[in-house]
Amino acid sequence: MKNTASSPAEKQFGLAPGTVVYTGDKTSGDLYIEVFDYSEDFFEEKELNSIEEAFKYSDSEPITWINVNGLNHTEAIEKIGEHYDLHPLILEDIANTDQRPKIDEYEKYLFVVLKMLYFDKDEKLCIEHISFVLGNTYVISFQESDGDVFDSIRNRIRLGKGRVRSMGSDYLLYALMDAAVDNYFNLIEAMGDKIEELEDNLFEEKPNDDITYDIQSLKREVLKIRRAVFPLREVVNRIEKSEHHLITEKTQFYLRDLYDHIIQVSENIEIYREMTWGLMDMYMTTISNKMNEVMKVLTIMASIFIPLTFLAGIYGMNFENIPELKFKYGYHILWGIMIAVFIGLLYYFKRKKWL
Amino acid sequence: MKNTASSPAEKQFGLAPGTVVYTGDKTSGDLYIEVFDYSEDFFEEKELNSIEEAFKYSDSEPITWINVNGLNHTEAIEKIGEHYDLHPLILEDIANTDQRPKIDEYEKYLFVVLKMLYFDKDEKLCIEHISFVLGNTYVISFQESDGDVFDSIRNRIRLGKGRVRSMGSDYLLYALMDAAVDNYFNLIEAMGDKIEELEDNLFEEKPNDDITYDIQSLKREVLKIRRAVFPLREVVNRIEKSEHHLITEKTQFYLRDLYDHIIQVSENIEIYREMTWGLMDMYMTTISNKMNEVMKVLTIMASIFIPLTFLAGIYGMNFENIPELKFKYGYHILWGIMIAVFIGLLYYFKRKKWL
Amino acid sequence: MKNTASSPAEKQFGLAPGTVVYTGDKTSGDLYIEVFDYSEDFFEEKELNSIEEAFKYSDSEPITWINVNGLNHTEAIEKIGEHYDLHPLILEDIANTDQRPKIDEYEKYLFVVLKMLYFDKDEKLCIEHISFVLGNTYVISFQESDGDVFDSIRNRIRLGKGRVRSMGSDYLLYALMDAAVDNYFNLIEAMGDKIEELEDNLFEEKPNDDITYDIQSLKREVLKIRRAVFPLREVVNRIEKSEHHLITEKTQFYLRDLYDHIIQVSENIEIYREMTWGLMDMYMTTISNKMNEVMKVLTIMASIFIPLTFLAGIYGMNFENIPELKFKYGYHILWGIMIAVFIGLLYYFKRKKWL
Amino acid sequence: MKNTASSPAEKQFGLAPGTVVYTGDKTSGDLYIEVFDYSEDFFEEKELNSIEEAFKYSDSEPITWINVNGLNHTEAIEKIGEHYDLHPLILEDIANTDQRPKIDEYEKYLFVVLKMLYFDKDEKLCIEHISFVLGNTYVISFQESDGDVFDSIRNRIRLGKGRVRSMGSDYLLYALMDAAVDNYFNLIEAMGDKIEELEDNLFEEKPNDDITYDIQSLKREVLKIRRAVFPLREVVNRIEKSEHHLITEKTQFYLRDLYDHIIQVSENIEIYREMTWGLMDMYMTTISNKMNEVMKVLTIMASIFIPLTFLAGIYGMNFENIPELKFKYGYHILWGIMIAVFIGLLYYFKRKKWL
Amino acid sequence: MKNTASSPAEKQFGLAPGTVVYTGDKTSGDLYIEVFDYSEDFFEEKELNSIEEAFKYSDSEPITWINVNGLNHTEAIEKIGEHYDLHPLILEDIANTDQRPKIDEYEKYLFVVLKMLYFDKDEKLCIEHISFVLGNTYVISFQESDGDVFDSIRNRIRLGKGRVRSMGSDYLLYALMDAAVDNYFNLIEAMGDKIEELEDNLFEEKPNDDITYDIQSLKREVLKIRRAVFPLREVVNRIEKSEHHLITEKTQFYLRDLYDHIIQVSENIEIYREMTWGLMDMYMTTISNKMNEVMKVLTIMASIFIPLTFLAGIYGMNFENIPELKFKYGYHILWGIMIAVFIGLLYYFKRKKWL
Repeated sequence: MKNTASSPAEKQFGLAPGTVVYTGDKTSGDLYIEVFDYSEDFFEEKELNSIEEAFKYSDSEPITWINVNGLNHTEAIEKIGEHYDLHPLILEDIANTDQRPKIDEYEKYLFVVLKMLYFDKDEKLCIEHISFVLGNTYVISFQESDGDVFDSIRNRIRLGKGRVRSMGSDYLLYALMDAAVDNYFNLIEAMGDKIEELEDNLFEEKPNDDITYDIQSLKREVLKIRRAVFPLREVVNRIEKSEHHLITEKTQFYLRDLYDHIIQVSENIEIYREMTWGLMDMYMTTISNKMNEVMKVLTIMASIFIPLTFLAGIYGMNFENIPELKFKYGYHILWGIMIAVFIGLLYYFKRKKWL
Repeated sequence: MKNTASSPAEKQFGLAPGTVVYTGDKTSGDLYIEVFDYSEDFFEEKELNSIEEAFKYSDSEPITWINVNGLNHTEAIEKIGEHYDLHPLILEDIANTDQRPKIDEYEKYLFVVLKMLYFDKDEKLCIEHISFVLGNTYVISFQESDGDVFDSIRNRIRLGKGRVRSMGSDYLLYALMDAAVDNYFNLIEAMGDKIEELEDNLFEEKPNDDITYDIQSLKREVLKIRRAVFPLREVVNRIEKSEHHLITEKTQFYLRDLYDHIIQVSENIEIYREMTWGLMDMYMTTISNKMNEVMKVLTIMASIFIPLTFLAGIYGMNFENIPELKFKYGYHILWGIMIAVFIGLLYYFKRKKWL
Repeated sequence: MKNTASSPAEKQFGLAPGTVVYTGDKTSGDLYIEVFDYSEDFFEEKELNSIEEAFKYSDSEPITWINVNGLNHTEAIEKIGEHYDLHPLILEDIANTDQRPKIDEYEKYLFVVLKMLYFDKDEKLCIEHISFVLGNTYVISFQESDGDVFDSIRNRIRLGKGRVRSMGSDYLLYALMDAAVDNYFNLIEAMGDKIEELEDNLFEEKPNDDITYDIQSLKREVLKIRRAVFPLREVVNRIEKSEHHLITEKTQFYLRDLYDHIIQVSENIEIYREMTWGLMDMYMTTISNKMNEVMKVLTIMASIFIPLTFLAGIYGMNFENIPELKFKYGYHILWGIMIAVFIGLLYYFKRKKWL
Repeated sequence: MKNTASSPAEKQFGLAPGTVVYTGDKTSGDLYIEVFDYSEDFFEEKELNSIEEAFKYSDSEPITWINVNGLNHTEAIEKIGEHYDLHPLILEDIANTDQRPKIDEYEKYLFVVLKMLYFDKDEKLCIEHISFVLGNTYVISFQESDGDVFDSIRNRIRLGKGRVRSMGSDYLLYALMDAAVDNYFNLIEAMGDKIEELEDNLFEEKPNDDITYDIQSLKREVLKIRRAVFPLREVVNRIEKSEHHLITEKTQFYLRDLYDHIIQVSENIEIYREMTWGLMDMYMTTISNKMNEVMKVLTIMASIFIPLTFLAGIYGMNFENIPELKFKYGYHILWGIMIAVFIGLLYYFKRKKWL
Repeated sequence: MKNTASSPAEKQFGLAPGTVVYTGDKTSGDLYIEVFDYSEDFFEEKELNSIEEAFKYSDSEPITWINVNGLNHTEAIEKIGEHYDLHPLILEDIANTDQRPKIDEYEKYLFVVLKMLYFDKDEKLCIEHISFVLGNTYVISFQESDGDVFDSIRNRIRLGKGRVRSMGSDYLLYALMDAAVDNYFNLIEAMGDKIEELEDNLFEEKPNDDITYDIQSLKREVLKIRRAVFPLREVVNRIEKSEHHLITEKTQFYLRDLYDHIIQVSENIEIYREMTWGLMDMYMTTISNKMNEVMKVLTIMASIFIPLTFLAGIYGMNFENIPELKFKYGYHILWGIMIAVFIGLLYYFKRKKWL
């Protein structure tokens, strides 16, 4: 919880608006820039280490995708801002990893922020910050570090599969966003598995506070996922509805479909939310069931042996005149009585269904 | 839970938008196509195994209903798409069983997705994916496999009962959707029975984690049903309100009625939701009541016999000088005292209403 | 729960839309028709057994109220439909007792459905289905059986009290709806009494599952009442706001007042809902309080007598060399110690406020 | 709860709409009428016992405030209605103490209903019904009985303080409503104290059902206050937004401020609502904490002394051949063992933090 | 809770609207006024003790920021009101510390209220009241006492960093609000730490009512923070959307960014709300887990030693004829049986996973 809220407060506090400060954790990576330049019958792919080289591609006619990895290199971001005449607040948002998903429409470009979500190998939820600038002939994407969900799009561009090569930069933006959203379905599935696993633990393990803690953590993760995904509905809806000249009618069909997918993800998240919120109650009943069982064992043992011990105590008394003690079969008769009491109580508990 | 979310992620991930991939489980069925061709005074019914044969019916004047069973035959779906000039995203949605209910309006046709819901023989909730394409003179329906809720409509077409033969393709679409919604009432009823049964179990069976698990499962089912039914309200509302040339004013009355039915189903689902969410609390109180009873038995047994045992213990001591031991009737007097204590405690518990 | 949802599914399933089927329970009653024909200075009242006789009244100038009791006589409903040219879906809704409250506006008439609610003598909630057709010079009301809440209106028509005789058919419709809504206040009051009674039971009776069951039943009833009443807000609001030629401006003031009353009923229902939803938690605390008390009795009895029994046990041992046993007043000293322990523990529990 | 809902049902049921019936409890008071007639440089104050005398003041130029106390005098209300030509439904609402806050706009006047709220000396919530008629040169206020929150306004009129004397009748209406809303802050404060007091009781008193009952009562009061205050937001908003000729632009600033205050009260009520709803859970944890403590005492006492008693029991047996019994220091050794067990168990419980 | 609601009621009750009364706690501070007068290439900073001196700065051309500390000096506020022709209700709101965040638009100026929030050194939540008047060439800010979050802005003005010196008074207002909102992130972070700390306490400390109380307090704080922050969304949105001549288009971009930040804070608050509301349930499960453990110890101890004590009791009886007592190894055999029972029960509890 801490670092999502703390970073901007710590790192940005007191700075003038529009100052470009990277607020994330990945501060050591190199700057790594990919360029894809393509049209229906042309394709070129480059890896660059300085941002200036990329400018020449995007200014010329064919569609160009510039993928910038390494938000810690704020000077590169500033250079891009200068070259493409981006508003200072946009540059701030590109580097501010706490920025929520949003869309800003400007005269000459659109700016979109969204989140990539995945569980790392320790089952910890990771939230990565991506932003896109859509211009007339280019899309620039900004990521915290390399390693992403866009490989299928790279391949489609390389091989000319699908529609991407024959459509404009707005379709490329759609395709990139679609890849990110498609990946949410993996996350959703992993989430579902986590919930089921926890449910099984509730029943199987003996009561312990770890489970309580795990439920609380799960709630937190669901809430974080919601926060990362839900604003995207509004974002995609606004792009689709916007009458910005950069968004063509043909692409709007695809955006509507994307919107649909986000709604679907959102519905799944809401279901997981309900299920997760129910887990604590569920856990309470399993604890209570277990306590019930413990109590029953105690009650049965005590209810049977305390009266019998009393009977034994009676004939352990030292009164001079206890007639029964002198009976020849007194001891055996008492055993008989005790066994009768024992069986009677067993039968009583049986009938109460405690056994 | 798993398979609803996992399928698209696994099977579709990384594919270009508009790729037709069947995401459901029924991958082995044959392609089975029914055609109903009819007008007010004409009727023909055919079963086909290739989709091309159906095209000639739908292009001519009378109304044609083409019912395609077997979404795994994606090549047939693609052929239909080609023939009727359907948007690639529609073809994707026809085969994508995870697509939520929706309506897409295109210039020349309407596309509608909804869900058929039923409990199978193991009381498991099944959700089946149906989609409709409404054209000027035809309706094409797509189902995962044969076996559906449209028999009454088939009969009405065959026998010319009701209005269906005398009205257009939009009425046929309405009639098919109406049949699916009518069937929701059966589901709702089965759901109600399940809840009542579970409530009875709460009281009757001895506490066990199965009940907790059943309640959680029920919640999940209610949430899934909601997700399948609720978007349909918006769908039907939009069809009714739309001023699409395919929807005639006469049919709008019927659509309004259909909307009404969906609202009714939704209200029932919401009631079941509230009832189901209350079950866990209800179960907690029954467990607590049971524990209360267990505790009372323990308390009564222990509170009566522990003091009596103490008394017996006193006179089992071996002090040389215990005057009472020498009394002639000491033993009998002690019995008297013990019985008095016993009765006194019984009376005390009686008055506390613990007996 | 069952019969509200089951009936339409069972009885109507597979029928063509617009088929008139009675879905309620009162299938044996006779058809019973009342006619009130009146204007400012004219009044006639008739009881009829065939619907055709009523037609002549409603077609002529003065206002006519035709009250039809017995929805099982579907052929009569169909005749009315034919005579007044009602849409088939309206006829279906008149007979379909599961239809939720609604308003349909047609060119020549308005159609309104609402519910009468009352507790029968077994405290069971009954929901009765009423529908109204408002025409230019007539109102036709349809009820499941005779016995209703309209006696005050009958009297006002007979005696010429209030405004009803001097106003049009729209005011009559208002007056009938107002009578039904006024009756909701009785229901609300009975509901309040039920909740209070149940609250008292929580505290007084010993814990048992009946109370849990009663709370759950009460929830169900509140939810059913909500479902029957809440849609009426929308209905009345739409009549008032509608610019239909049948609704005069003068009557709109009254409809606004009616709307106000329904809001008031709704607010009360919501309060009862909150109170009822709180009952289960409330019951849990009373159970816990009771268990607490049980545990205290056990703890006090056991904590006092188990140590004392131990002491007695010590001196019941048969060691050859236990010096204390030979002390002359050993027995008396031990009693002294025991009493001291007893008083000490009592004091301890007193200070803990357990006594 | 009862009387809020029951009164209109009992007293008004079956009456024609617009019939003036007092539905409150204060049926014995006298009619008491105050008149304030003022302009910027003129002021007159009168107490009247008949309503007719008041008419002459309000019809002439300066602003007149007629304050009518005693809603049981329905004939006076009817006379006012006649003189000022008020709609019959308004007269009904003036006397109907169950009417919720509302605003009705008529051509020649505005009608406003609101509630005065206070706790009486038994800490019981009282809800008093006030209504206002705003005309061109007059405001008429109707109260159940005398004793109100308007003294500060009386003084401002008398002394010419503030703006009231220099502004129109709409400002007077605002000032009266503002006084009522200001008083809500007192109520809110008293409510806050009640909640804090109850919270303290939870911790301090021993568990008992009275607390449960108090929490439930508090919930009820919060819900009633909500119902009395929340509709006022809409009322004031509508007055401010209305373009009725009686509301001048100058007064609108003040109405906006009043709206702000009501929002503030509403927010406080919502906070109290959340706090009150949390009390039952809070109480459950304190009960559980207490039970935990009880259980610990029992467990410690029983776990220590039951094993020791067993040891004593061993050497109380009468076997002929128990070698230990003959040891010279057998008894002392056993004491040593017992003390060791005792200390060991104490240490064990200490480490578990049960002591 | 008390003082937030009580103050206005106590101090303002019965006063005419527009009366300037300070309702906060800091009644003893001096009046302290700062003036910043600047344009792109000019800068002057002054500290004043009388308000009149400030007037000359603000009336002349360059932008002037007048920062007034000490709301208890109501006469100064009134003088400002007179000089700048502010509406009396604004003056009331400046001094009324209970006023919720709001924006009022007037012809010649904008009036904005918001809250500064921080935890003081005792971890108590403090809410400070700030208001701004934005005029053509000036911004006047009003604070309860000196010590604020505006130092970064003072520095930016002094050093000419960022855009503040080159833009108008509307940008200055934005910058001040932005600084306050930036500071919310610190609060949010501190809140997150508090929740985590409390969660840890739940598990580690032994059950006690302090934790219950802390949870309830935390809820209260979250609710107060919500109430202070949430209305700001509407405020900023309205400034941005307003077409007031004082708000330039250039500044609107920044306001949109500010709006975004407030949404982000709001989302975090909602997450904390959910987490905090879950704490009570979480605490219940940890208590139950602890009780479960206590019960298990009791059950194991009692279930093992009560039967063994019974066995010992049997052979402590004084019957004349108990054959076993005479066996040579009777005592040793009994020990064998007892050890067998002991091990058997241990094994039983082990298998039940209670050990």
